[in-house]
This record gives sequence, structure tokens and C-alpha cells, in this order.
Amino acid sequence: AEIVVLPGDGIGPEVTAAAVQVLRAVAQRYGHQFSFEERLIGGAAIDATGEPLPLDTLAAAQRADAVLLGAVGGPKWSDPKAKVRPEQGLLAIRKALGLYANLRPVKPHPAALGASPIKPHLLTGVDLMVVRELTGGIYFGAKQRRGDAASDLCEYTVAEIERVVRHACTLARARRGHVTSVDKANVLETSRLWREVATRVVRDEFPEITLEHQLVDSMAMHLLAKPREYDVIVTENMFGDILTDEASMLAGSLGLLPSASLGAGRVGLYEPIHGSAPDIAGLGVANPYATILSAALLLRHSLGLEAEARCVEKAVDGALDAGVFTADLAPAGRGVGTRAATAAVLEQLE
Amino acid sequence: AEIVVLPGDGIGPEVTAAAVQVLRAVAQRYGHQFSFEERLIGGAAIDATGEPLPLDTLAAAQRADAVLLGAVGGPKWSDPKAKVRPEQGLLAIRKALGLYANLRPVKPHPAALGASPIKPHLLTGVDLMVVRELTGGIYFGAKQRRGDAASDLCEYTVAEIERVVRHACTLARARRGHVTSVDKANVLETSRLWREVATRVVRDEFPEITLEHQLVDSMAMHLLAKPREYDVIVTENMFGDILTDEASMLAGSLGLLPSASLGAGRVGLYEPIHGSAPDIAGLGVANPYATILSAALLLRHSLGLEAEARCVEKAVDGALDAGVFTADLAPAGRGVGTRAATAAVLEQLE
Ligand SMILES: CC(C)[C@H](C(=O)O)[C@@H](O)C(=O)O
Ligand SMILES: CC(C)[C@H](C(=O)O)[C@@H](O)C(=O)O
Repeated sequence: AEIVVLPGDGIGPEVTAAAVQVLRAVAQRYGHQFSFEERLIGGAAIDATGEPLPLDTLAAAQRADAVLLGAVGGPKWSDPKAKVRPEQGLLAIRKALGLYANLRPVKPHPAALGASPIKPHLLTGVDLMVVRELTGGIYFGAKQRRGDAASDLCEYTVAEIERVVRHACTLARARRGHVTSVDKANVLETSRLWREVATRVVRDEFPEITLEHQLVDSMAMHLLAKPREYDVIVTENMFGDILTDEASMLAGSLGLLPSASLGAGRVGLYEPIHGSAPDIAGLGVANPYATILSAALLLRHSLGLEAEARCVEKAVDGALDAGVFTADLAPAGRGVGTRAATAAVLEQLE
Repeated sequence: AEIVVLPGDGIGPEVTAAAVQVLRAVAQRYGHQFSFEERLIGGAAIDATGEPLPLDTLAAAQRADAVLLGAVGGPKWSDPKAKVRPEQGLLAIRKALGLYANLRPVKPHPAALGASPIKPHLLTGVDLMVVRELTGGIYFGAKQRRGDAASDLCEYTVAEIERVVRHACTLARARRGHVTSVDKANVLETSRLWREVATRVVRDEFPEITLEHQLVDSMAMHLLAKPREYDVIVTENMFGDILTDEASMLAGSLGLLPSASLGAGRVGLYEPIHGSAPDIAGLGVANPYATILSAALLLRHSLGLEAEARCVEKAVDGALDAGVFTADLAPAGRGVGTRAATAAVLEQLE
């Protein structure tokens, strides 16, 4: 299998290197051939080529079986007057590969409960799958600056909503059969369309699924008060962005949360949900678990290697069980670095 | 002083009645004259007049010194095909009265920590003031449904951002001098304008204020992980809606959080941040504290009665200290009703 690696900015290179090491170990253990091709994206690509998503990067991704991405962005490229921004590279590759369904599983690991701000008794049994629509909504609508005013357009079509709701329902079928669709239908027209379409898709195509609608503001609350009650949560792009960062606190750290971005095409993109963390870049202290778990999702969803995916997930579980915590998970001032955490996973793999 | 009372729907009539009782007791104790005029809004107004904000309601509000509102909405008026919706009444009165700054203080009460999903040690010392922009953004931009597509336009002007940021900075000056401005400037044009304007207003007009920018997704996380570090948080309409419902979990229950909506004009509007809770409407079990605390904000911000405002806040504190909990705050299946909670506040007032 051909895997394109896009390290990106900040801690991106460190965490993707860790995940590639794990994938190499999996290949060796199971007798697979994985080839890795590295390409530029984000700020690193702007510095080298002037473009956040060079054509060559996109072409490599389109030819590959899967893409593993680190993170993009940083203060170096954050001048509000800048014409190109690292984030554009990420948005452009999601769009170009048609990756409309962003899967963000949240399943708190017992060993990480100490790092969560949430009371532990609320977290046992939590097992969420958030499906975030990833190629529509206000992220991609027309943006304007005219005189003293700025605007962003949020748009959704029936087809865009249908496909992501179907994806969520299909996942729910193999889980607890419950889907919560999140919108702001009491105010937004796009949300009213969202609610109509979700209702119809479930009624006509997934009669065995229980569908519940939640307003995004209530959901921000219920996610904390009764996280156990949710199974699959499906929502539009921006709401998904906010709610999954919030949900990461259930798991103790953003540094534990992987994601898979899937679409109609063959290629999937896998990235941790955390950002480039420029403040700790290059220090060797970044938590690699989220990217390693993203590699597990890559094995599962793009390569169809379920046993291998589970093996990686169990290895990360094992490292956490053994108390191998990076700084984001450990009590103040403690914790191991990226290398030791990766080594703990590799050790469990063997 | 003339106070217009808009009970609205669901538990609205119950909680506003409780707050009016408290205001009457304050008037008596301090020798003030408050007159109360009741008017229709939301679903109740649709049922009676066909309009969610009858002209007569708006006219009364415009003549008054302050408006006390319960909540609007409910399943009865939630048909997606409905032409008029209760929420339109709320949005319309906010807009018509020019109430651009919605103040949502969050200060967890020690007695309510048990009801919060957050670990108690993170909550001591938390004292937030969220200032939500209330008359702009995607709530008020053009909404369209065309064929298979729907859209909502998010717009902000420099002047809209300036005035709410100034309001936030003025509040911060009397607090800890720290303002966190929340946006999604790495993706949205309105957010880039927001960030530019916030930066300039603080630099030019409030040099003594420390300004920090946060992306909305990170903020959803930090709000839980280190709530103590924030003082005043200022943000646009939709982000403020989501983040304050999330922040309510710090206080243990949405049922404890009041709000004040202020603007350029004389009249302020005061409402709990919770909704109409149709499932418990009419049962006499609604938590009246958020509406009573909203009445305290009314005394402070619209009537300039600081001592009276504090007296009401202390009375609610006292009721909580005494363990007078409604169902949302009490362990499962326990808790007193609206009448007993209100009586506990009135008792403390005397
Ligand atoms: C970097 C940014 C554009 C991105 C997003 O908002 O989609 C990130 O926050 C994420 O969640 O993947
Ligand atoms: C009812 C709804 C329109 C309203 C809003 O979103 O502003 C409510 O959620 C609030 O926060 O006051």
C-alpha cells in the first residue's frame, strides 16, 4: 500500500514520524508492504513553494491509498493580512479529495481519566463517534470583505446532508443504533434543511436507527452532563469542529483523539484532531498517541486491515495502562517525551 | 420604575412570576415603586395574535425602564414548515431594542458543585463574564431556501464589533482587566475582521487591558480545562450561544445562569439563559434562580440599584447555602419546587 505522509507544521513532523514508525512495525509483523512518500502542506509548503497545497502534493495524495497528516499552521503564517494561510492547504485537500465525512471517535481510556476535567463517574462507558461534515458549510461558502463589512456564507445542499447522514447511520448500525443530529434549526435555514433531510433519510433508509435532534447549544451542555447517552453524533462542519474539541476533554486530552476523513473516493485522510502546537514544536515532547491512533484508523478504513488496526489500538491502550504519559496527560511538570511514548507502543506491538 | 414582563412559553410564566415576587419584595423593603406590565411574546403571542412579537409588546418594552423575559418556544410551534416561530419574537425584540451586548456571568456557587460534571478543584475561583454579541452575525443575515439548497449569511461590520468589544473592555476594567476574544480567524473572514477590530480597540482605547485571542474550538476545550484563567470573554453571536451553554456546566445547571442584554438605548432586557423546558412546564418544578438572578441584573444595570441587586444575589446564595435545591441541582429524584425555592429566597431577603 502507498501512504502519503504530510507532516505539515509545528509538532506535525514529530507525530507523523512516530506513526510511520508504528506502521512500519505493523508491516513487518504482519508481512505487508507499505511505502511512504512525504510531501509538503501548510506553512512548510508556503515557505517552500508559496502555496499551502502544492499541485504535486495533491497529485501524490490522489494516487495514494491513504494520506497521513500531522497538523498545519502557526504564528509565522498568521499575519491577518497574509494572502495565503496554512489552513487553506488543509481545507483544500479535504475538498479536493471529497472527504465529506470526518469520523472522530471519543472513548475515554481509564488511565487518562485523571487528566480529564470531567468527573470520572460520568465517563465510564462513554463511547462516542462524532461524524463531522467536512467539505461544506460556512468553511467553504463565499467570503467577502467590502469596506467596513465582512461576510461568510453558510450553504448546504440536500445531497451534501444526505451522504453524511447516511454515513453516520451506517456506522450507527454496527454500534448501538442511535444517531443524534445536531443543528440550530430554531434559527438557521441551513439547520432546518439539515433536520428535514436527516429525518427523511433515517425514516426512509434506516428505519432501525433511533434518531434524535439536538440544538447545538444544548448539545454543548449534554455532552458534558450525560456523555454516556450518546452513540453516533452527526453534525455540520463548524458545529463538529467546536463539539469535538469540547468532547476531547472527556478523553482527558486532545492528544489522544484521532480522526479519519472519508468520502466517495478511494483515498482517506487520517490526522490527529489536535493542532500544530507551535509552542512545543521541536522539543520532542508532543503526544504521538492521537496520530498513532489515526494510523490505526488508516489501517481499518483505507487498507481494510481490521486486525492490524486493533493491534495498534491495543498497543496504545497498553502504553496508557502502563502509565506511559506525555506531559498533556501527566500531573504538572511530569511525563515522557514523544520518543519514549512511541517506544512504549512499539514494545506492546511485538 | 416600569418593568415589562414577558413570560413567554413553557416554564417562562412560572419563573417570571417568581422573579416578580422577588422584585415586589425588594420594592417594599427599600421603598421603591415598581410597576409591572405583562405582555405576550413567542408561542403564546403567536397563538393569541399570529405574531411572535406583537407591536403592542414592542411598544410597551420601548416605553419601559426594563424588560424581564422568561423563555420562548416549544414543540407546539416547531413544525419545520411553520411560517412564524416563537424564536423570531426573541430575535426581533433583541434587534428592535438594539441590545447588542448580552452579559452572561458564570460564577459557580460552592453549594452547586455537586451538580456540575466538572471536577470541583477546577471550579474554585471561577468568575467569568461572557459578553455575547446579540444583534449581528449569522442569526440576522439573509436566509434562503432555493431548490435543493439552503443558506445563512454571517455578516459583521466594524461598528458592530467595536461597540461590543468596548462594552467587554469596560466591564473588564472593573474586574481583573483581562479580555479573551473568541473567533475562528483561521477560517472565517468575519472572524478575521473581528480579530483586527478587537486588537485595535484594545490597543487604542484600553491600553490597560490584556487582550488574548482564542479560536472557538480551542476555547470550547480551555473553558473546561482551565476556567479560572478567564475573566471577560467576548465573542460573536453564535459562538457565544454555544460557549455559554457549555459554560453553564461549570455552574452546575443552566437553571442558575442569568443574563442581561444591553445596548445603546435606555431599555435593558433580562432573561435566564435556559429555554422554555416544555417537558416540565406547568408542573411547578422549574428552577426560578436564573430568572431571579436576572432580576438582580435588572436592578443593577437598568435601575442603578446596586445594593438591591446584591441583596437579591445574596438571598439566592443564601437559599443555595441552605441546600434549597430544585430537581436540576439535587441528586436524582429529589429537590423542591419553584414555590419553595422562591420562598427560600424571599425569606433570605427579609
Ligand atoms: C485548522 C482548522 C482549519 C481545522 C478546522 O477547523 O477544520 C482544525 O481546527 C480541525 O478541526 O481540523
Ligand atoms: C431561543 C434561541 C433563539 C436563543 C439563541 O440562540 O439566542 C437561545 O438559545 C439563547 O441563547 O438565548
